[in-house]
Amino acid sequence: MISSEFALVETIRRLAGKARAPVALGIGDDCAVIDVRPGEVLLHTTDCLVEGVHFRREYFAAIDIGLKAVAVNLSDIAAMGGRPVAFLLTLVIPGRARDGRGNDTIQETGRDDERYLLDIVRGAIACGRKFGCQLAGGNVSSTRGDGLIVDVSMIGAAKKGCVLRRSGARPGDVVLVSGHPGQSSAGLALLNDSRLTTHDSRLRTASSIQHPASSLRAAHLRPQPMLALGRSLAERGLATACIDTSDGLVQDLGHICGESGVGAEIDAAKIPISRALRRLCSESRKDPLEFALGGGEDYGLLFTVTEKDFPKVRRLKSPVPITSIGRITRSRKVRITGCDDLRTSGFDHLK
Amino acid sequence: MISSEFALVETIRRLAGKARAPVALGIGDDCAVIDVRPGEVLLHTTDCLVEGVHFRREYFAAIDIGLKAVAVNLSDIAAMGGRPVAFLLTLVIPGRARDGRGNDTIQETGRDDERYLLDIVRGAIACGRKFGCQLAGGNVSSTRGDGLIVDVSMIGAAKKGCVLRRSGARPGDVVLVSGHPGQSSAGLALLNDSRLTTHDSRLRTASSIQHPASSLRAAHLRPQPMLALGRSLAERGLATACIDTSDGLVQDLGHICGESGVGAEIDAAKIPISRALRRLCSESRKDPLEFALGGGEDYGLLFTVTEKDFPKVRRLKSPVPITSIGRITRSRKVRITGCDDLRTSGFDHLK
Repeated sequence: MISSEFALVETIRRLAGKARAPVALGIGDDCAVIDVRPGEVLLHTTDCLVEGVHFRREYFAAIDIGLKAVAVNLSDIAAMGGRPVAFLLTLVIPGRARDGRGNDTIQETGRDDERYLLDIVRGAIACGRKFGCQLAGGNVSSTRGDGLIVDVSMIGAAKKGCVLRRSGARPGDVVLVSGHPGQSSAGLALLNDSRLTTHDSRLRTASSIQHPASSLRAAHLRPQPMLALGRSLAERGLATACIDTSDGLVQDLGHICGESGVGAEIDAAKIPISRALRRLCSESRKDPLEFALGGGEDYGLLFTVTEKDFPKVRRLKSPVPITSIGRITRSRKVRITGCDDLRTSGFDHLK
Repeated sequence: MISSEFALVETIRRLAGKARAPVALGIGDDCAVIDVRPGEVLLHTTDCLVEGVHFRREYFAAIDIGLKAVAVNLSDIAAMGGRPVAFLLTLVIPGRARDGRGNDTIQETGRDDERYLLDIVRGAIACGRKFGCQLAGGNVSSTRGDGLIVDVSMIGAAKKGCVLRRSGARPGDVVLVSGHPGQSSAGLALLNDSRLTTHDSRLRTASSIQHPASSLRAAHLRPQPMLALGRSLAERGLATACIDTSDGLVQDLGHICGESGVGAEIDAAKIPISRALRRLCSESRKDPLEFALGGGEDYGLLFTVTEKDFPKVRRLKSPVPITSIGRITRSRKVRITGCDDLRTSGFDHLK
């Protein structure tokens, strides 16, 4: 039996051995770093969206599936402080449905449809273009399984010596997070749970687009990679460590601590909770910190800076708030103060 | 409905638009070409093995699944005349089986098993190492589907101006192929079809490893990427066009012709048929040309050279035979002389 996704990755890392030139950084960060030209390194990353695991067609428009598949890879490039260059797109398409032998639900949602697949591609291309990242190739395969898989492999570049890694956090560093953690997982809860959606069924009309809950859904459906922030941090040499918040704040902070050989103490009262999340939670009697600490797929940046550089971060221009939430410690544990015991385990694909 | 894999790819290519710097070559060849450093270009490719489509656990050892997943990507690098640098490995793992709720067959074949997955990883790492290509990262995801997916994304490099493309074939060029086409598809037929295997059931004992049919099976299970040949052709400027034979000889030649705006005439009598394939076909009353012209997954190189350079190709050192099988023509069609009408359509994932 497989104990966990991360245990499996650790074992694979041991099997792969230490990175050798031209690979400057192998398994264990958001991207691989490859040293192929003077002054610049190459970033290489891959991430996929699996139907039934990462998305359901009932609430995910095809164009947003493509958009998000590219956005989550762009977010990996952002977390290294790089600029995206090009991506390959792989579509693994269920054969059963394509043969028209799928069940009614499948036919109703248009699984059969070339238009559906091409809308995914359009979303992927549009999201890449917005950040100067071209679709440069890919692969199409069938599967005997039920679910569509949209896989992206992306190349980026970064100035040599300026790459943001997970491994540089030191005791005393300030821990910062961009945006409002928990938005995406709260949006997913809204999309999945009819009990949560009944209180704002008005949302289904176009006029309700400004309802706070729609910002939660949008955070899940159309995440915004923090490329400009990542490059600012990298080029100014501000962040001692950085990761994108894809697995949940506590778990992602655990990755930084694990790679850096340190711990962290987070003040729950400092976690920035959006008005929309606060409202959802007051209506549904949930604790917003459950979403903010344990919920994944926010694709913000979680990073550390020295005490000395902290004021510089405050002066950075950013379209989203950047909030100091705690400190790096020597303890090798992630401790959260100011809240009760929470389910903050984050997402593990093999649990 | 989706008409075909290749029609879908063509539509995606139109959507993506013309490649812009630094992408020198986008959709439509074996790798994307990215121009990021003086004197050298980057190659980027991706290919996956899907359980039930590309492999079945009944006949595929885990280590060979990993090996082949990397080999087919190395073959794309070979087809561009490049050297491989690093790869990312994605495992999409069936969740149902992992939870121990799979059926008996699944449990018997050890689907549950971390060891099984790690053997795949070991095979992938070993195959990469053999050719100087490191595992540098990747991704693990679950799926609600039945089948395991092993996806690889690979980066390579090539001298600028020396990249082998599909698009340079000109009328009068000689068409050449490495190795013995049809070996892999004949091996697959042996692995799949008990009627074909009964005549050599001796093979199941270790002492029969030298039986001709075992070379057919090995061609399917453990393809050898033609990296040295690809680099020789590229660095000597010999090939006017090149592709790896993954979809079947006729179909792959069709790709060269399509990209080059030419046609080809192949002499069926010149297609090199191995002794093993000839023997299998005489025993099973099949036509070896069906395998050699229509069978995919050989991962040899199919390339064109000018009449003038043809003698130089003959002097190349190669561990496998290189055979002239026809000529490029102006007709825009692939014509095969010297054989009856054959099913030579090759493999299309969406047909």
